[in-house]
Amino acid sequence: IRSKLPNTGTTIFTIMSQMAKDQGAINLSQGFPGFDADSVLLDLVAKYIKLGHNQYAPMSGIESLRKNLAIKTEKCYGFLPDYQEEVTIVSGATEALFAAISTVIRPGDEALILEPAYDSYEPAIILNGGIPIHISLNEADFSVNWDRIKSAVSFKTKLIVVNSPHNPTGYVWTAEDLKILADLIRDRNIFVVSDEVYEHITFDGRAHLSLLGNEELRKKTFVCGSFGKTFHVTGWKVGYCIAPKELTKEFRKIHQFLTFSTVTPIQFALAEYLENPDHYQSIQEFYEKKRNLFLEGLKQTKLKFSTTQGSFFQMASYGHLSKISDQKLAELMCKKLKVACIPVSSFYHNGTDNQFIRFCFAKEERELEEAMNRLLRLE
Amino acid sequence: IRSKLPNTGTTIFTIMSQMAKDQGAINLSQGFPGFDADSVLLDLVAKYIKLGHNQYAPMSGIESLRKNLAIKTEKCYGFLPDYQEEVTIVSGATEALFAAISTVIRPGDEALILEPAYDSYEPAIILNGGIPIHISLNEADFSVNWDRIKSAVSFKTKLIVVNSPHNPTGYVWTAEDLKILADLIRDRNIFVVSDEVYEHITFDGRAHLSLLGNEELRKKTFVCGSFGKTFHVTGWKVGYCIAPKELTKEFRKIHQFLTFSTVTPIQFALAEYLENPDHYQSIQEFYEKKRNLFLEGLKQTKLKFSTTQGSFFQMASYGHLSKISDQKLAELMCKKLKVACIPVSSFYHNGTDNQFIRFCFAKEERELEEAMNRLLRLE
Ligand SMILES: CSCCC(=O)C(=O)O
Ligand SMILES: CSCCC(=O)C(=O)O
Repeated sequence: IRSKLPNTGTTIFTIMSQMAKDQGAINLSQGFPGFDADSVLLDLVAKYIKLGHNQYAPMSGIESLRKNLAIKTEKCYGFLPDYQEEVTIVSGATEALFAAISTVIRPGDEALILEPAYDSYEPAIILNGGIPIHISLNEADFSVNWDRIKSAVSFKTKLIVVNSPHNPTGYVWTAEDLKILADLIRDRNIFVVSDEVYEHITFDGRAHLSLLGNEELRKKTFVCGSFGKTFHVTGWKVGYCIAPKELTKEFRKIHQFLTFSTVTPIQFALAEYLENPDHYQSIQEFYEKKRNLFLEGLKQTKLKFSTTQGSFFQMASYGHLSKISDQKLAELMCKKLKVACIPVSSFYHNGTDNQFIRFCFAKEERELEEAMNRLLRLE
Repeated sequence: IRSKLPNTGTTIFTIMSQMAKDQGAINLSQGFPGFDADSVLLDLVAKYIKLGHNQYAPMSGIESLRKNLAIKTEKCYGFLPDYQEEVTIVSGATEALFAAISTVIRPGDEALILEPAYDSYEPAIILNGGIPIHISLNEADFSVNWDRIKSAVSFKTKLIVVNSPHNPTGYVWTAEDLKILADLIRDRNIFVVSDEVYEHITFDGRAHLSLLGNEELRKKTFVCGSFGKTFHVTGWKVGYCIAPKELTKEFRKIHQFLTFSTVTPIQFALAEYLENPDHYQSIQEFYEKKRNLFLEGLKQTKLKFSTTQGSFFQMASYGHLSKISDQKLAELMCKKLKVACIPVSSFYHNGTDNQFIRFCFAKEERELEEAMNRLLRLE
């Protein structure tokens, strides 16, 4: 059999999580919480299983979850999507991204990806016959380099994939970024897939500016979100896509043949849990505390960093200490210091290595403290 | 936006389930159980959620589930797959089918589909740029018409999608069918996707002959299965794909970007539940009883039918009573008699209408009896 993804191996997240396990290392690599969700939410799933909600959910998601997600969207971003025709519940944000990209991209279409980038955008584009065009963020601060994007746009450009808060850099889009994007795609047949899975994790008073909050942008955008990231249950695999009616219609056709529907009792649990806005409004403070604790420790180490603006990731650079590759450093750190991280070169299609590593600080305080203690030995 | 699936609307399963709900009809349309799963299984999910198994599962599935599925496969079909490299847990059989078809099909490749056929095969082929070639089963008894298949095979044929026990006809493959298929693909570069989601539902002493039980066939086959269908939890969306190492390697690359992984606590629950073979060995008898009860009722009606051999579906024909279309009949039955079924023309790409309807008998006894009472009024 001839591979459709010849350049794809096992993802770095699988590799590093496995290495952490084998080495008994503290796992700050793959992005998932090292603590459990609110027991209220856990109990809700048990309740709905007991109540017998165990058969197929409607293809687009159960009505109460779509409705409550629409209400939350209005609360957060001042826009109330039509839950009947604009909101779809899917089996994780990964599925939302794949289905959205599939909806737009046909063979020969170009899609812009801003690097460093999460690793699922490119294969989704390739599997649909599209051509990924990679554009680097500004090297200094990982802000968006709009000049590079403008020069990359061609008559073949059908899609731009954006991501804020950004994985792995933590960059959070500004009002200016949204404005320039709106100007760029105005009068062009370019759609946007916006990966907003860290929407509730922004710091230092920054607000997440969802593309849904921009009247012009949301007309051409698929916003992909994740209940797993927001509520500390990445293993539940429930995400969503919010997009205008005509886009949602085509998105659902594809979703319907990718997974058809999403775990029923978990949808019911999330629907009820969303009724209390505290449940998502408290996330920001919760993670800011963790980030601050993590940074206190990181300051004591020899690593350099710029404070992350959002997401539960913090990048750090070690180029001033050593010239070894980031892959090698990540391996050594895992094996010798027993702390696993992600080498940021994995987020570049061509393996660009600027000697950065990425830490996930969605962990228990004592685990973060212990990890930082271990990193003191780094030199 | 230009549709990638211009001929696809909302699936008939969604339409009829919705109509049944709106009409207060007994829903024998969409294929899902009208009763709950074993409370032992339900409690297991609650247990693993409480135990904190709520973050990402490994991409290919948790080890104990893959291992226990491999053991079950050996028990049932005399073949022990390598759970490390040949078994993948995915988010429902729909995902397994989509990922398997994506693994094989490239633009211009032809894929054979035997009609009537489940509705997800064709869009999966089309979304991958493939060309679906439709071949009708024998009209008399829905057995496989191998002559038609042989004439349809060309140098472009890359895939044949098979399904036994068959939805919607209930036809169960014979040893002869497997032998002819093996002869057909021997020395040809043709792969097989085998939809075996009803593997545990065969009747009258028939055994399900999995393609995994055939040494030659399994080397070129992706077998797709469903825990949801087997254990009465279609809403949990956990399925699997078993395929040889080289195929699984490529399959997983695609799965990893479709959904990445599958609901963790449910995987743990299923792994433990599989440890007792009674849990799957009792399914056959359980459904045979339901089928027999259903047929007793069906015999009293004016509908004609040949006894289903497997699956939880029974087809029936009404051409001797009326010449209206099966879509119209299904609508009338739902609205007037308050029993929902599926018009079988939906299983043909071109809407071939042989005046058949399909019933799902995975329902409580009293519901089946009441439905059959209502159908006595059909004339
Ligand atoms: C789906 S595994 C990757 C999790 C994640 O988002 C990350 O670590 O970047
Ligand atoms: C995924 S909805 C369809 C369920 C089913 O298998 C059927 O009714 O044929």
